[in-house]
Amino acid sequence: MRGVVMYAPGDVRVEDRPDPRILQPTDAIIRLAGTCICGSDLWPYRGIEAVEGPSPMGHEYAGIVEEVGSAVTAVRPGQFVVGSFFASDNTCQICRAGYQSSCVHREPIGAEGAQAELLRVPLADGTLVATPDVPPDELVPSFLAASDVLGTGWFGAVAAEAGPGKTVAVVGDGAVGLLAVLAARQLGADRIIAMSRHEPRQRLAREYGATDIVAERGDDGVATIKELTDGLGAHSVIEAVGTQDSMMQAIRSTRPGGHVGYVGVAHGVELAGEELFYSHVHLHGGPAPVRRFLPQLIELIWNRDIEPGKVFDLELPLNQAAAGYRAMDQRQAIKVLLRF
Amino acid sequence: MRGVVMYAPGDVRVEDRPDPRILQPTDAIIRLAGTCICGSDLWPYRGIEAVEGPSPMGHEYAGIVEEVGSAVTAVRPGQFVVGSFFASDNTCQICRAGYQSSCVHREPIGAEGAQAELLRVPLADGTLVATPDVPPDELVPSFLAASDVLGTGWFGAVAAEAGPGKTVAVVGDGAVGLLAVLAARQLGADRIIAMSRHEPRQRLAREYGATDIVAERGDDGVATIKELTDGLGAHSVIEAVGTQDSMMQAIRSTRPGGHVGYVGVAHGVELAGEELFYSHVHLHGGPAPVRRFLPQLIELIWNRDIEPGKVFDLELPLNQAAAGYRAMDQRQAIKVLLRF
Repeated sequence: MRGVVMYAPGDVRVEDRPDPRILQPTDAIIRLAGTCICGSDLWPYRGIEAVEGPSPMGHEYAGIVEEVGSAVTAVRPGQFVVGSFFASDNTCQICRAGYQSSCVHREPIGAEGAQAELLRVPLADGTLVATPDVPPDELVPSFLAASDVLGTGWFGAVAAEAGPGKTVAVVGDGAVGLLAVLAARQLGADRIIAMSRHEPRQRLAREYGATDIVAERGDDGVATIKELTDGLGAHSVIEAVGTQDSMMQAIRSTRPGGHVGYVGVAHGVELAGEELFYSHVHLHGGPAPVRRFLPQLIELIWNRDIEPGKVFDLELPLNQAAAGYRAMDQRQAIKVLLRF
Repeated sequence: MRGVVMYAPGDVRVEDRPDPRILQPTDAIIRLAGTCICGSDLWPYRGIEAVEGPSPMGHEYAGIVEEVGSAVTAVRPGQFVVGSFFASDNTCQICRAGYQSSCVHREPIGAEGAQAELLRVPLADGTLVATPDVPPDELVPSFLAASDVLGTGWFGAVAAEAGPGKTVAVVGDGAVGLLAVLAARQLGADRIIAMSRHEPRQRLAREYGATDIVAERGDDGVATIKELTDGLGAHSVIEAVGTQDSMMQAIRSTRPGGHVGYVGVAHGVELAGEELFYSHVHLHGGPAPVRRFLPQLIELIWNRDIEPGKVFDLELPLNQAAAGYRAMDQRQAIKVLLRF
């Protein structure tokens, strides 16, 4: 099969790789309906995360089950399924509490690389959720989004306790930030402030339910959020970047007693305990337990209540994956869909 | 009146100070029934916090209203009242959300010093809560505890979401930690693990409801908590110290999806974003909004359902305040009550 491999920062290649095989009786093999590039793939692409030798890339997937191991009972060949970036048993105490991405038996999907035609998914029964039927092609981008960026934005909104009566602010206008806006709207937030300085992203944020756009960043961005909220700050702030600046912007934009949901993978972030103490915020986040939300997200997409697939504004054949990485790195594309 | 003044680290004196007067129509003057020394008074005593010239000390108080300003309607002279370390209007949006210690009009009590015979309390209507009647003398220590250490331990337990079905661990065996044990028990926690290596404090922890005592600290302490919790960590951990070590011990003792309630005033704490991200914990804390809990705490004490006053294991006349500071600094006393 063909698959994407990163050799070094900036060096992404599409190669022939061996087809994955069932290794454990709990595995499934999926033929992907498409795949995509994630904002988090840019950390190694930009050299901020180390690339240790040639690494298969990709951790977002949806597609048709091709084969299952002998112990798999919840999904069967021919079904269209969605999973997320950590395989999980969905039965341990941590999974049952809704934290499948910290499952005691979790396995990262990234190691095998989902930017490929086929993917082995461990712990298939706990990890995969089938759609009601094989979806029409136009729904595939939305199911791919559900696999990570929608599930992650949704977790950010849940962690920030977005809901009725709340003013929600979103730091970050990548796919996760934009889908956090969509999630906050679905969760019933009164007012949603998207922090973005890019016109096409501002437009999509509004389409997804943003009521206000704040173009300022840092201290100016915080001051503007306070102006919009009686000087108090937002009730709920979703952090969808993962840098020191974005974390501090999120914490400082939140009122005392409010909630910060942070889902940008933290890189080089250090939080000063004293400022955090006196901020009085709730802080929760981490790798999104997308599995918790998948049944609900699949239903919303299937019923066409939401269209998270709109975050894909560039579609390329898999063989042009390198161009896709470049476009995302240079912010020419919000998110890239790779087709076979 | 007589009052405690700190001149420099280790230099605590009892002096004649001018009686406080009503300055604002919303003020009240309280004649204290007793006063006490707080663990947080040890930060400047030990030179970890700066002492900027002679500073009146103390922020815990309960006593009889002596005089009220013309705008005060909720309390009247002759009533026994309890307040806490921030005066608050109890009407702003932040107060109504339960975060009175971040009230938009808050005023610290510490500036005037509650280790004295009389105290001016600003925003009396929002700050003070009257007991059903003037209490018998044996309840005074418990009401003094409600003013800060009980309210703070209680907030820690609430922030950590202690409750039925939960295993709770408490880092710190000072008065706040011990009263967090009491709070977790009152909130219905199944199992309460007190982390303490001091026999008298272990004994009081058990009396307050601890089911397990862990004497190990740091990595060893974390490992022991994990052993006691199927390798997962506690559901709820209360941090009641405020150092880097205690914060990390608390975060690492918490299972993914669990809750850390931190109420030790953070000193020199730096949290690494990446570890926090992958820990998957909820983090909440800060200066306790004691006012939120006062009506409930007063009722529990009045009905003799709880006896938080047991944390006072040394009672001295006000004039011997310096000896009280010394005893707490050297951990010879858990908490010192000063009588007039």
